[in-house]
Amino acid sequence: MPQKPDLPNPKPESRRVGYAIVGIGKLTADELIPAARTSENSYVAALVTSEEDKGEAFARAFDLSDRDVYTYDQFEELADREDVQAVYIVLPNSMHREYVERAAKMGKHVLCEKPLGMNADDARQIVAACKKARVKLMTAYRCQYTPEHWAARDAVQGGRLGKVKLLDSIHTQVETDATAWRMKQDLAGGGPLPDVGIYSVNIMRFVLGTEPEWVFAALHQPKSDPRFREVEESVAFTLGFPGGIMATGLTSYGAAKTTTLRVLGEDGSLLMDPAFPYDGLKLQLTDEAGTHQPSFPEYDQFTQEFNHFSRCILEGGTPWTPGEEGVADHVVMDALYESARTGKVVTLKSSRKKDASRGPDKPQLPGK
Amino acid sequence: MPQKPDLPNPKPESRRVGYAIVGIGKLTADELIPAARTSENSYVAALVTSEEDKGEAFARAFDLSDRDVYTYDQFEELADREDVQAVYIVLPNSMHREYVERAAKMGKHVLCEKPLGMNADDARQIVAACKKARVKLMTAYRCQYTPEHWAARDAVQGGRLGKVKLLDSIHTQVETDATAWRMKQDLAGGGPLPDVGIYSVNIMRFVLGTEPEWVFAALHQPKSDPRFREVEESVAFTLGFPGGIMATGLTSYGAAKTTTLRVLGEDGSLLMDPAFPYDGLKLQLTDEAGTHQPSFPEYDQFTQEFNHFSRCILEGGTPWTPGEEGVADHVVMDALYESARTGKVVTLKSSRKKDASRGPDKPQLPGK
Amino acid sequence: MPQKPDLPNPKPESRRVGYAIVGIGKLTADELIPAARTSENSYVAALVTSEEDKGEAFARAFDLSDRDVYTYDQFEELADREDVQAVYIVLPNSMHREYVERAAKMGKHVLCEKPLGMNADDARQIVAACKKARVKLMTAYRCQYTPEHWAARDAVQGGRLGKVKLLDSIHTQVETDATAWRMKQDLAGGGPLPDVGIYSVNIMRFVLGTEPEWVFAALHQPKSDPRFREVEESVAFTLGFPGGIMATGLTSYGAAKTTTLRVLGEDGSLLMDPAFPYDGLKLQLTDEAGTHQPSFPEYDQFTQEFNHFSRCILEGGTPWTPGEEGVADHVVMDALYESARTGKVVTLKSSRKKDASRGPDKPQLPGK
Amino acid sequence: MPQKPDLPNPKPESRRVGYAIVGIGKLTADELIPAARTSENSYVAALVTSEEDKGEAFARAFDLSDRDVYTYDQFEELADREDVQAVYIVLPNSMHREYVERAAKMGKHVLCEKPLGMNADDARQIVAACKKARVKLMTAYRCQYTPEHWAARDAVQGGRLGKVKLLDSIHTQVETDATAWRMKQDLAGGGPLPDVGIYSVNIMRFVLGTEPEWVFAALHQPKSDPRFREVEESVAFTLGFPGGIMATGLTSYGAAKTTTLRVLGEDGSLLMDPAFPYDGLKLQLTDEAGTHQPSFPEYDQFTQEFNHFSRCILEGGTPWTPGEEGVADHVVMDALYESARTGKVVTLKSSRKKDASRGPDKPQLPGK
Repeated sequence: MPQKPDLPNPKPESRRVGYAIVGIGKLTADELIPAARTSENSYVAALVTSEEDKGEAFARAFDLSDRDVYTYDQFEELADREDVQAVYIVLPNSMHREYVERAAKMGKHVLCEKPLGMNADDARQIVAACKKARVKLMTAYRCQYTPEHWAARDAVQGGRLGKVKLLDSIHTQVETDATAWRMKQDLAGGGPLPDVGIYSVNIMRFVLGTEPEWVFAALHQPKSDPRFREVEESVAFTLGFPGGIMATGLTSYGAAKTTTLRVLGEDGSLLMDPAFPYDGLKLQLTDEAGTHQPSFPEYDQFTQEFNHFSRCILEGGTPWTPGEEGVADHVVMDALYESARTGKVVTLKSSRKKDASRGPDKPQLPGK
Repeated sequence: MPQKPDLPNPKPESRRVGYAIVGIGKLTADELIPAARTSENSYVAALVTSEEDKGEAFARAFDLSDRDVYTYDQFEELADREDVQAVYIVLPNSMHREYVERAAKMGKHVLCEKPLGMNADDARQIVAACKKARVKLMTAYRCQYTPEHWAARDAVQGGRLGKVKLLDSIHTQVETDATAWRMKQDLAGGGPLPDVGIYSVNIMRFVLGTEPEWVFAALHQPKSDPRFREVEESVAFTLGFPGGIMATGLTSYGAAKTTTLRVLGEDGSLLMDPAFPYDGLKLQLTDEAGTHQPSFPEYDQFTQEFNHFSRCILEGGTPWTPGEEGVADHVVMDALYESARTGKVVTLKSSRKKDASRGPDKPQLPGK
Repeated sequence: MPQKPDLPNPKPESRRVGYAIVGIGKLTADELIPAARTSENSYVAALVTSEEDKGEAFARAFDLSDRDVYTYDQFEELADREDVQAVYIVLPNSMHREYVERAAKMGKHVLCEKPLGMNADDARQIVAACKKARVKLMTAYRCQYTPEHWAARDAVQGGRLGKVKLLDSIHTQVETDATAWRMKQDLAGGGPLPDVGIYSVNIMRFVLGTEPEWVFAALHQPKSDPRFREVEESVAFTLGFPGGIMATGLTSYGAAKTTTLRVLGEDGSLLMDPAFPYDGLKLQLTDEAGTHQPSFPEYDQFTQEFNHFSRCILEGGTPWTPGEEGVADHVVMDALYESARTGKVVTLKSSRKKDASRGPDKPQLPGK
Repeated sequence: MPQKPDLPNPKPESRRVGYAIVGIGKLTADELIPAARTSENSYVAALVTSEEDKGEAFARAFDLSDRDVYTYDQFEELADREDVQAVYIVLPNSMHREYVERAAKMGKHVLCEKPLGMNADDARQIVAACKKARVKLMTAYRCQYTPEHWAARDAVQGGRLGKVKLLDSIHTQVETDATAWRMKQDLAGGGPLPDVGIYSVNIMRFVLGTEPEWVFAALHQPKSDPRFREVEESVAFTLGFPGGIMATGLTSYGAAKTTTLRVLGEDGSLLMDPAFPYDGLKLQLTDEAGTHQPSFPEYDQFTQEFNHFSRCILEGGTPWTPGEEGVADHVVMDALYESARTGKVVTLKSSRKKDASRGPDKPQLPGK
């Protein structure tokens, strides 16, 4: 028993940002609500769910009152809840736009799960709706808020690897439930690519700070497998970045859980393996002197996201991963699907500006 | 968003064991209260602390009411709290006996942090008090409740390493606060040995299932360092187990955090590194065929402890690590201090029975 | 000092296969000659080189006599050397065909470095020349003769990973000498692809036992860099194998040394990292039970090659990696270059037979 | 094929030191002769063995003539061999003194395998004989000639770990041949301690640069096992170094091959695992910033030894590990055996000078 314990010391609720979480599932229960609990500037003020019973059970389990639970029909009642300044959208992809728009109309800021929409057009309308309503919009790319991924970006952009030449990233997992909404094209907008492959696309764009100029993809969809009637099982893709940098990626719903990122420069290389889980990320930097595995303070990725977005709301900033960042991944993914259809390289016209789709305010990293 | 979330599904409070946590510090805030939250059969019903303010802050932070907070003077008021069936003692070592005895007198079961007491005699009186009051007593040896340590024990006892010959374990960390109670001989009963070295002693006894027959120790205590005026900085020790098995150990308050366990048999070896943190334990088994690193389901060590003790209370069992197990470590540590004083091997007369100081009921491991 | 040493116990030279090594460089000095020394059934009987001085220095250093050194002009004098039954061609790629043909005409068996030729047509003529002369031809794919790569193949084909879905392989290194023959298109036939990328192509074909049905590639060639006036710096490629299995690959002369192979199945995965060095190969197999790193006896990859080819010569077999295996890689590489030129997927018509281009006799693995 | 190969470039034999290797076994065949081959300043000029046949087989296998082979009886004939300037003693420990003395009388310099003698007295006489004959004497401690062990020493002595507090080292292996000379007390002078445990003692003394002030040991000798009728199976020991630094060690002939060194300081730690094989040494340095695994150039440990001793001979220096260094380990080991006999700490009176038993000339490390 230490004599001077670190008491949990959040601000009073009145000075924190209250969130309504829209959509209740494992992510909400296991990650979001606990994360909000340990955030200094955020808390969960309400839950929105399709099933009242489930919402109330959640509410009880997480010390909210039954009055804090809303059905989707009651969503607009949140307008009167002044303590709810923001919503966190954790719904099937096809529902993102509707709920972002409804939230924006109420003047609520929006933190939206990835992928932002169903495709680039859908995502652009989400961005437009928030812009029109003058509410803030952040795409929940948790890997752009970790010290490990920032250390990787710093190694790449700070020259530690020498001139960067090649990247490689894998994100695969096995999905067994053929009935899940993720397996329905009109709910998910695609298969593993927008669900897990998006991490590879997103983090390769993030560490480089640039956008691909061309892409290639091939996909495999064994339609006789009930899981893959509507969406692909696997995608293999190649991205061409400015300066001749090339990147390969693999994603799948049919291959054992693997999450990696590798960046090869002329003087050294980095490996993140695993690269995308909620915790236990491992970064290795290798150069002529040897291999270095930096250590990082403990933190929670979802707390990092809450903290950043609430800080933007409280202090008036633009999120590091705004809606535009979500659009940028959709642009790439749309082109990947087109390439897979045509068997040809697809050229993109993206901004040449560094971090073109990112906000001006970098996230605050733990221990800094 | 999965469509069929795993809702947190604890039993109603009336069928769970309510605990009063006695002593509030970092361990309580960071580990015990969250652990109890996720336990199916346990919950925190009350807090006992020296400073009312601190207790109330904690209560608010953890969704207890101010009425659930007691000062040490008010400890006996818990007698009337029928919902409090057990206490968890998280106090400086010198206070264990008093509070165990006071709890036992109220008929409360006791889960007590390690080391159980100040020395073997003190610990034996703690055991006796609980026996007399017919309450259950468990020493909180969290490493005897993890699947990793059980897999190590199974490898050792199941013959996977061949005949076991040697063990080695290190547990060191840097303590900087010379004013901490851990640095006071009459509060702690010793330095790093009963605080962190005890893990090595305990887990080597656990994987073998036997007791040392002889011990040797040397210690280093640089009294000019304000931290080590009363307690040792480091201990190096050797334990002789039945069958000629020998074990070395190192513990310190002055050396960088290191936690390892190594067991060498004639056909193979095992390494746990790290061996004793709250999570991220890593076990490697090596034999002629290669090296195997088994994977384990996620779990929380403190939840494991709560679950086990509550099960014993609800179903009438004896804990796997009862008070006797706490006594057994004290017997070894008393002998280590004696050896360090005399520069000679000290012989022990311990039971030759397998797992002599352990209860009949093995803990339930996660995923089993 | 062990009392019963393992004496080196080669057969007498008269019962071993004598090799003339054609081309003297670092590989010959550091690897081939020492490897032949420790082979039970092979020895170096002669050296063929462009510079007599260099050859004689080598001869002295390696205990051959000056009479065992031949210039390229004197190559045909080997016809009279009955003790030279085979030649090992270690020349720039563009010279392979000429020297294989000249050796075949003399009735010498041929072990030829990879890539077998300059392209598929060139390689097919090499195969034809040996067939016509009824001499044996083996492509020196050392990675098909190691216990690690065979364990990887066994894991893939034996079902340990479940149904295989995806592969990924990287082979990169930094070449600094713009004047090296490897940098000349008409000496090398390409850049890193036929030199190091070929390992990825070859070993992915080997572990699956099948041939790609389609390929895609993109390459980067910064012609302003003197090293890359003629050949590419990097290639990113995708291979489509039967059954929807997809594989990505990266190769480069401009990125830090990296050699990996990853195979992802639905039940598990394997990683070789490093995958292609002369020693220190590391194989990891991961499934639900954990991660296993098998151990292997010590061996020398070049000795393995010598042993296998000499066994084929002495006992009348067909090498596991005959000329046809070298052709098969060229077919894939030709298609990769075509895809890079056109930006389109290129379809291949390969045999559907398992191990179609491999010989019937599997190599003997160390310790078996 | 590189166009400009690195030709092996030793000096002419006349300017290199010729060695007679005394004792032929696996070490000689697998390590010493190949090592001498790649040394710039050393070569094997003669072999001395008990069995003429064996010597001649060796000679042929290693390109020596039959005239270069001597029986032990013919040892003194080496006196006339001016090209033999040094002998390398690879004999059972009990024979070291006799052959060192006979070599010294002939004026030959002596490189002697560890342990230098049977005990400290024996080793001191070896030193005295060489001193009297004015020949150089080096104890073949190969681990004091590697870049990895020097990097460990530099980390320890350069303050990278902060103040050093604790060390731990394991060296175990399984010996199965009860008839080997290593199992005979009067040939070996002890069991695993002077054979493999000596590495732990030696390298802990080396990285610290100081001598233990006190020691403790316990040993296990199951005399019913034919292997351990005369020598111990295992030793567990503790060394007390100046400044309160303590070290534990384990060695055994009955436990699976394990070789480790760990050093714990207040700011960081280092781990070598494996620590003592001929190659594949791995060093990890851990501090608050993370874990660093430095990389090192390739080299051969035995070549390093030959190079160093020959340089001392050619240039007139004193070896880094002279006979005195061999004596120092015997002093420690004698005390360990005494402690094991008495069950008490044994105090030593060693020099307080840094590197008191080492020569002034540090070895030249590869790549420097």
